Amino acid sequence: MHQEFTSVEAFSQLLQALPEEDAGARAAAQERNGQLTKPPGALGRLEDLAAWYCAWRGNARPVIEAPQVIVFAGNHGVTAQGISAFPADVTAQMVANFEAGGAAINQLAKAFGARMDVHALELERPTEDFTQGPAMAAGEFVDALKIGWEAVDSEADLLVVGEMGIGNTTAAAAMALALFGGAAGDWTGRGTGVSDEALGLKAEVVARAVAANAGCGSDGLEVLRCLGGREIAAMAGAMVRARMLRIPLILDGFICTAAAACLEAARKGALDHAVAGHVSAEAAHPALLERLGKEPLLTMGMRLGEGSGAALAIAVLKGAVACHSGMATFAEAVVSGG
Amino acid sequence: MHQEFTSVEAFSQLLQALPEEDAGARAAAQERNGQLTKPPGALGRLEDLAAWYCAWRGNARPVIEAPQVIVFAGNHGVTAQGISAFPADVTAQMVANFEAGGAAINQLAKAFGARMDVHALELERPTEDFTQGPAMAAGEFVDALKIGWEAVDSEADLLVVGEMGIGNTTAAAAMALALFGGAAGDWTGRGTGVSDEALGLKAEVVARAVAANAGCGSDGLEVLRCLGGREIAAMAGAMVRARMLRIPLILDGFICTAAAACLEAARKGALDHAVAGHVSAEAAHPALLERLGKEPLLTMGMRLGEGSGAALAIAVLKGAVACHSGMATFAEAVVSGG
Repeated sequence: MHQEFTSVEAFSQLLQALPEEDAGARAAAQERNGQLTKPPGALGRLEDLAAWYCAWRGNARPVIEAPQVIVFAGNHGVTAQGISAFPADVTAQMVANFEAGGAAINQLAKAFGARMDVHALELERPTEDFTQGPAMAAGEFVDALKIGWEAVDSEADLLVVGEMGIGNTTAAAAMALALFGGAAGDWTGRGTGVSDEALGLKAEVVARAVAANAGCGSDGLEVLRCLGGREIAAMAGAMVRARMLRIPLILDGFICTAAAACLEAARKGALDHAVAGHVSAEAAHPALLERLGKEPLLTMGMRLGEGSGAALAIAVLKGAVACHSGMATFAEAVVSGG
Repeated sequence: MHQEFTSVEAFSQLLQALPEEDAGARAAAQERNGQLTKPPGALGRLEDLAAWYCAWRGNARPVIEAPQVIVFAGNHGVTAQGISAFPADVTAQMVANFEAGGAAINQLAKAFGARMDVHALELERPTEDFTQGPAMAAGEFVDALKIGWEAVDSEADLLVVGEMGIGNTTAAAAMALALFGGAAGDWTGRGTGVSDEALGLKAEVVARAVAANAGCGSDGLEVLRCLGGREIAAMAGAMVRARMLRIPLILDGFICTAAAACLEAARKGALDHAVAGHVSAEAAHPALLERLGKEPLLTMGMRLGEGSGAALAIAVLKGAVACHSGMATFAEAVVSGG
């Protein structure tokens, strides 16, 4: 799998030629499901998840043994507007924490047998303040997409992409506002925990960001370039690479879902290889998932980012696929009612 | 831990002397939680779960490394009333499937590192048809409680109890009706998948069962004896033993929750060491969980029993405790904002 892209246009063309699920594998999986030693439908959503996973892997009886979690980190010029409860230095400090194994995502990746990689994208050089114009020039945007693209392990069989970037719920809110309209306040939440007063300022910054980049319209890739950030673009690059490699993807929280929404805006169905791992406590995440037509697997009130909610959902996928591929059929077990 | 009981009265006395959570361990866990490298509250419900787990283990920084899943199986005289979509032979066939490793619960236990045990309780001798009188005599009931009690591994650090028993959603519905009142139809669901017509018959059988055992009133242990079954009583015995051993418990679906509700009726707070693993698709499970004041961790539309929903929730507990005990503190990681 060596598709290359050196421009936004080339990346956009890739999006128009995405592989689709394997209908034969889905049908074979559904046939197998009907023979397993349980009443029809008794595993509920686990059955749908297993069929979806089989369809993307092209295998009616797969195993999940190599999940990968990738955390991308970036800094944001918009932090100059005072929209975060934490200083921008925290991004680099948390990258060091990821590398040392001390963050929540490290524990979850380890608990569920996932390989974890961390990519810090030019933290010393924040993106431009998007209240003044585009966050990234085209070349910077392509570089970030490529970092995501290349970060995916072609041997992985399930992917989680997470992020760390002080200020990035502001970016995600601006992206959602540009893509879907409404009021800035509809898409603006507390992020890592800003006060009531700061929340009003944050919504105002989101509105100014979209106004300053009105030329993007609702063009998915332009929205991602102008209102996103390097870690958000890298997530999008990784999502598309996963699709090319037929690696099923679990979406994380608000920022991850905003990156996904840009891809979906650029190419309908671009996220068919993804499920929503959880719905976060960030106020606008439910609405964003609804726009993507994704029903979250978990509702735990998490709002951490890092891929943490999606990593927890690795276990759900593992459970679903383990049942599907490991259970005996009625014939094998000699149970009545098959 | 060698408490013994040889009568229902002795078991009832044990219920009045249950150990409580360790308030010191909870406080120490909450203090640790406040120092971990994340914004306060950002792990949402995982933080509450970790604190609860620490409180019951008496340890502010525990690990989960020995979960146990126990599946109890029993047969029910009430199947003579034609209330199940499957023949009673399926109970024994599924026990063989559990023993051979072919059922859903086997796959889930393996996926999440749990030991699994199966106890078949006199399958060849179904309980009495409770539309005619009590399901079990006092001695039989005590025997079943004891099998559950003795099945718990004192070295386990998390417990799931599941069941298999053709006809046992009828028993659970009758137990719920006796405990909480209302109409029989409020508590009666499709179980493994009965038709509309059979559902009406099932509700009528549930109503007759409660009428035939009106002497139970809403006495928890009497309801369990007269309207339960051996596998349901064994689950209750295991739940109480887990409490004695300070082993946190994950409740499964409708039948498991009905057993728990009998204990809670017999002794308020008897299930404080338990969380609800999931809410099942069985119609009355949400209402039953609400009576117990338990918010389910997962909503996957499962309705299989066997402990399957609770087993999936082992992963959530493992994730919560892994974050709590494994994350770096702000001081350890040198992250600003602690």
